[in-house]
Amino acid sequence: MATLDPHGDVVDLAVALCDIPSVSHDEQTLADAVEAALRSLTHLRVTRDGNTVVARTDLGRSERVVLAGHLDTVPLTDPPNLPVRRVDGLLVGRGTTDMKGGVAVQLALAAQLPQPTRDVSYVFYDCEEIEDEHNGLKRLARTHPDWLAADFAVLLEPTNGGIEGGCKGTMRFDVSTKGIAAHSARPWNGHNAIHDAQDILARLAAYEPQTVRVDGLDYHEALNAVRIAGGIAGNVIPDRCTVTVNYRFAPHRSTDDALAHVQSVFPGYHLEVGDLAAGARPGLDRPAAQAFVTALDLPVVAKEGWTDVARFSELGVPAVNFGPGDPNLAHTDDERCPQAQVTQAYGALRRWLV
Amino acid sequence: MATLDPHGDVVDLAVALCDIPSVSHDEQTLADAVEAALRSLTHLRVTRDGNTVVARTDLGRSERVVLAGHLDTVPLTDPPNLPVRRVDGLLVGRGTTDMKGGVAVQLALAAQLPQPTRDVSYVFYDCEEIEDEHNGLKRLARTHPDWLAADFAVLLEPTNGGIEGGCKGTMRFDVSTKGIAAHSARPWNGHNAIHDAQDILARLAAYEPQTVRVDGLDYHEALNAVRIAGGIAGNVIPDRCTVTVNYRFAPHRSTDDALAHVQSVFPGYHLEVGDLAAGARPGLDRPAAQAFVTALDLPVVAKEGWTDVARFSELGVPAVNFGPGDPNLAHTDDERCPQAQVTQAYGALRRWLV
Repeated sequence: MATLDPHGDVVDLAVALCDIPSVSHDEQTLADAVEAALRSLTHLRVTRDGNTVVARTDLGRSERVVLAGHLDTVPLTDPPNLPVRRVDGLLVGRGTTDMKGGVAVQLALAAQLPQPTRDVSYVFYDCEEIEDEHNGLKRLARTHPDWLAADFAVLLEPTNGGIEGGCKGTMRFDVSTKGIAAHSARPWNGHNAIHDAQDILARLAAYEPQTVRVDGLDYHEALNAVRIAGGIAGNVIPDRCTVTVNYRFAPHRSTDDALAHVQSVFPGYHLEVGDLAAGARPGLDRPAAQAFVTALDLPVVAKEGWTDVARFSELGVPAVNFGPGDPNLAHTDDERCPQAQVTQAYGALRRWLV
Repeated sequence: MATLDPHGDVVDLAVALCDIPSVSHDEQTLADAVEAALRSLTHLRVTRDGNTVVARTDLGRSERVVLAGHLDTVPLTDPPNLPVRRVDGLLVGRGTTDMKGGVAVQLALAAQLPQPTRDVSYVFYDCEEIEDEHNGLKRLARTHPDWLAADFAVLLEPTNGGIEGGCKGTMRFDVSTKGIAAHSARPWNGHNAIHDAQDILARLAAYEPQTVRVDGLDYHEALNAVRIAGGIAGNVIPDRCTVTVNYRFAPHRSTDDALAHVQSVFPGYHLEVGDLAAGARPGLDRPAAQAFVTALDLPVVAKEGWTDVARFSELGVPAVNFGPGDPNLAHTDDERCPQAQVTQAYGALRRWLV
């Protein structure tokens, strides 16, 4: 079994976490290693649900906070961008930014801070990078909401070491064209659904996304095709073409409002909605959030990516994003993270909790 | 093992052939049954290469002709359109038109005509409905051209019982757009390759195909997307989108000419050519072709679909298409064939060969 040493250097721990590949749905090896490391710590109460592991201090403090992060990554590149390489003070490879640097900070704090000034729940969960239905934190909010109860939550998604408030909502939907199949030598007997998809792509290419200021932070909306598929065989006029679209919307919109908006972009089309999750307003007017910002003394900007802060927001727990790594490098082929950001995030949270 | 009775009624034989499913690459069961039926006939010399079976009379006639057909079909519908149903004088189901009606005619003649006036080579081959590289007749032309040597060939592809001369050429190529992957919450860091594919689809939708008269027959050209694919994951800006295009061109064009033409439709794009096969001119000026047309006394029209007559054409063997079934119904969900056309095709070829 792969082992992790949570008592050592946090950067070494980040490398060790990355070097146990954990593409979504394939997190068991890593979850086992994280659980084993946590169970070796007698000051923590450890529970597990599937490949989601939660460890809690139980010191009777007046406040409880959550430090949360996901264990999974998007697929590796070809050839694989693992094991991690250390280059010029950077960690280079899949997971370094999104988000095993943050997971290393959680795990090191869990081991190295037996007496925090606030009770802490450390949440390590699975399947964040794929369809919403598989999300470990979503599952936990339904099956064990008590494991997530807190006054404040920090999600260690990459923020380049800054504090990012709230998040945009996200929606995925399929929009299709329907044609009539026929032999491609006699296309006049059919109707080409792929050719018709030109209209869908033209609407996407012409779309002008809005920038929306919410509670003082600027959120940039976006509407993008993320998948297209059509065709039956090399000699058949295709009878269907489906475009999967991802809409990222500012947190002033409800999910209903987001739906109405995309329907206005595709009038007359049936939209088959897959994932749909509201964003989270920054929420920095709340006292618990203010205390965190004051303690870290860092600037606050809007979070562009949807993150699970929205799930805490739904449970009534104010939450912010704070973690090492440049979010612009998440999911890219040259994913990398400055080692110093991992160390600094560890240091900042440690200062807040002692 | 599935068995076939080649001595019975040709329509019953067509049904039995269809009811042994044989989607491309999965023809072995049917090829075994056809081979066993042929080996039971002592007047034939039977050889086999993979799932291609050839049976020949060897009567020392002054002329040899080929009757050829492919054993494979396109995939079944969902739910499956087999076993064959007999409805109002029609055979309904996958393969009835393309082309087990024709295969039944070949197999019945092979069994029931031990002393034809011309030596006959019956060719049953695999993998006609998929990529050119797998085609059994193409393979045979390379490995055993002697098995195909003849003065004239009839390919029993569906022609609605008429004679169809020559065929259009066909070309498949990929044309792609290249973008830059990025997280879909921050699309400004990437470039969306699917949105760019709008230009490819617009060119296809605007394309005006030509109708070309060759040796007195009209061939209708066609340019169609048959597949489109793009996208990495639901939260990633796609870095590539590929459209597979099928160009069907009149037989006045060489393959070089066809290439130059599609390049002019997509200026500036790199075209990745997959299949590329010239058509066949009607060739009805040749004596052997004329004798066949005279014997059957049927009208002659242009063959729109590319067929393996082009392979015979390349070997210097004049060839025509003549078989039961409406070619417009090939590959469609409601594929069907009039029983009478199967019987009539059998009767016409029998008259020609006795």
